[in-house]
Amino acid sequence: MTEQHIPDGYAPLTEVGVREALSGLDAVRAILGADAAGAGRWRVSEVGDGNLNMVFVVAGAHGGVVVKQALPYLRLVGESWPLSLSRAHYEAMALRRHHELAPGRVPRVYHFDETLAMIVMEYLHPHIIMRRGMIAGEQYPKFVGHITDFMAATLFHTSDLCMRAADKKRLVADFCGNTDLCKITEDLIFTDPYRIAPDNRWTSPQLDDIARAFREDDDLKIAISRLKLKFMSSTEALIHGDLHTGSMMVTEDDTRVIDPEFAFAGPMGFDIGAVLANLLLNYFSQDGHEKTPGERDAYRAWVLDAVAGVWNEFRRKFMRLWEERGDGDAYPRVLFEDASGRRRLRMERERYMNRLLQDALGFCAAKMIRRILGIAHNIDLEWIADPATRAACERRALLLARNLMVNTDSYRRIESVTDAARLARDDAAD
Amino acid sequence: MTEQHIPDGYAPLTEVGVREALSGLDAVRAILGADAAGAGRWRVSEVGDGNLNMVFVVAGAHGGVVVKQALPYLRLVGESWPLSLSRAHYEAMALRRHHELAPGRVPRVYHFDETLAMIVMEYLHPHIIMRRGMIAGEQYPKFVGHITDFMAATLFHTSDLCMRAADKKRLVADFCGNTDLCKITEDLIFTDPYRIAPDNRWTSPQLDDIARAFREDDDLKIAISRLKLKFMSSTEALIHGDLHTGSMMVTEDDTRVIDPEFAFAGPMGFDIGAVLANLLLNYFSQDGHEKTPGERDAYRAWVLDAVAGVWNEFRRKFMRLWEERGDGDAYPRVLFEDASGRRRLRMERERYMNRLLQDALGFCAAKMIRRILGIAHNIDLEWIADPATRAACERRALLLARNLMVNTDSYRRIESVTDAARLARDDAAD
Repeated sequence: MTEQHIPDGYAPLTEVGVREALSGLDAVRAILGADAAGAGRWRVSEVGDGNLNMVFVVAGAHGGVVVKQALPYLRLVGESWPLSLSRAHYEAMALRRHHELAPGRVPRVYHFDETLAMIVMEYLHPHIIMRRGMIAGEQYPKFVGHITDFMAATLFHTSDLCMRAADKKRLVADFCGNTDLCKITEDLIFTDPYRIAPDNRWTSPQLDDIARAFREDDDLKIAISRLKLKFMSSTEALIHGDLHTGSMMVTEDDTRVIDPEFAFAGPMGFDIGAVLANLLLNYFSQDGHEKTPGERDAYRAWVLDAVAGVWNEFRRKFMRLWEERGDGDAYPRVLFEDASGRRRLRMERERYMNRLLQDALGFCAAKMIRRILGIAHNIDLEWIADPATRAACERRALLLARNLMVNTDSYRRIESVTDAARLARDDAAD
Repeated sequence: MTEQHIPDGYAPLTEVGVREALSGLDAVRAILGADAAGAGRWRVSEVGDGNLNMVFVVAGAHGGVVVKQALPYLRLVGESWPLSLSRAHYEAMALRRHHELAPGRVPRVYHFDETLAMIVMEYLHPHIIMRRGMIAGEQYPKFVGHITDFMAATLFHTSDLCMRAADKKRLVADFCGNTDLCKITEDLIFTDPYRIAPDNRWTSPQLDDIARAFREDDDLKIAISRLKLKFMSSTEALIHGDLHTGSMMVTEDDTRVIDPEFAFAGPMGFDIGAVLANLLLNYFSQDGHEKTPGERDAYRAWVLDAVAGVWNEFRRKFMRLWEERGDGDAYPRVLFEDASGRRRLRMERERYMNRLLQDALGFCAAKMIRRILGIAHNIDLEWIADPATRAACERRALLLARNLMVNTDSYRRIESVTDAARLARDDAAD
């Protein structure tokens, strides 16, 4: 971690502090509603359950806002793991960019205070964290459409396929300072699960054998290292950087993507893989949530449809954007203007997407493994109380992930992945 | 091109201006020697023959220095093509970094003046531009050793294989602003030779057919576009960005790399390919320089040995650095500590180098083509007075380059490239 710089004037917010900080902001007062009693009537409650930040919901007579403040350390670990406050700066920048590119898919930012590392943003109501809905077996029929709108719009428009080179390099530079957050990913996803690291944990003793086997698996460690190098040296697009189902707020009709504090110019496959991984983890967790065997069969089918849908819809939308708005400096239109050139470029787009799926599946596997063998786990699996049941779910996920990462090129279509996920459960049932 | 910002106090230097600018610099006065007559005794002469800058040699009683000043436009084209003065800033940064990493392989920087966009540096004497020596048929027995020292040291030490991620991202950001110079490469190397562009030129009418065929060659245009995307979105290492034989000053015993104003964090293969391409162009030009057929056979053999040597020595040195100093965040040592891990990592290094050769050969081809069909040509070929002879040489180079770029994966060893170069001449002789 880099040396911590805490600006003069920064202090962790209390409920009183939130009220004070907001009372000077006209736009926020207008949203909340401020009568003669002013800010005194606002109800402030801390709701943060994440690993990195304080989160307050502030409710007034007219409406609510959310106040998110970065803490100078990793909340999950404590003050021993300092973490740059500047991540709030990157999150606010990313939220604003995402809002421009995918309006309606992210919360609006009302105010950003650099000194307090505080973002005041739209209060999403009655949204819940998607992961919680999925654990409860809720289907989100609009999710695939919404999330692929977000992914295609944000990734395409911040890529060299759409941007001019100078603008793109400025974007890269704007996010180059977000190194503390990148370092978390580099360590916790791409390194620690594959070695003995003090903060690793897993369902023990049930998974001791596979955790050890992964630490001794040279092919796997080479594969994860290739992915790490790609994460570190490919500036394909502005990526969200932490696009799991805990970063999505949903209702039956709406989907919003929050928490882009890990944003930087990185490989697109990392975001795509994150979505796929978190759906697959939920899929494998359902055996631990159903009350009677088979109760969640229909839900499992929906989840796998969503896995396939996320890739296929993303692919379709991304290719369409490229066709319609491919005015970036890469693959310049001017070289492919005649009928034959346009045809050839269309074939190249297929190839590009095939390569991108390979990237996404590698990162997907990395995200699955880290949630089972690393420091930070998903409640999809954590909430399975019985360790034997949980371990059985986790083992299936790990085996699929290992094969996805080492034999990525066996999976040329997303349906090969969903088939493999189905088989992994069937085999276990035999 | 970006809008031009010319700092207050900037003015193109005259010989008088150079004298004034240097007379206040103690370190420079010490090098030149300043007697009672002071700066008045210094001889100043403008020697720039490049495309972008003013270059003065200043000679005093004790020694000399070179003064290089950026002009606010592309000298080759004129004031109609404005070009950011900030490139002097990037050049000075790169020269200093190169000096740290490959001491003795670049000129020393004595002074950098940001306002004047002026670098005062070591006067290399009796060095000549390598390209001129090669046209004259001079062999440089130490060249392969020197240039591969430079390439391996500068590329390895600025890669994720050696650097910590946060330091690397700072390096990326430091050079992200060098967009005007990157844009020259993007346009003149990766786009214009493959379309009708006003500044393209070639030996006409002899090469009209192949120039047209290249403009209509969809496979070639897809291949160059893939390379362009890699150039734009891969931040593998700090690359020189213009590493041709005109950027090398040599004697029989010494080799220095100058002019890194195109430096930025890009794909390593671009630098490697530049060296290979310029050697190959010289190889194909020799038929136009020999007075009797076969006179330059031995020289041609030396040039092809140098092509093979550049790759093979670079590869050996780069792999050795990785083995010995691979302390970067990519492929972290901690994952490969036991005997089996070390063995597996060694195999992975082979694979990494194989991929890097493929990158280098693609970029090599791009660099060859642009020097024959684009705006800026090499004197290796330009100095062949007879157009028919010149065109014959150029056609052989173009045909090899086209195959290298489109069928890159047929060339797994550098010797396949030198064999193909040899064959291209033999076939022509049949």
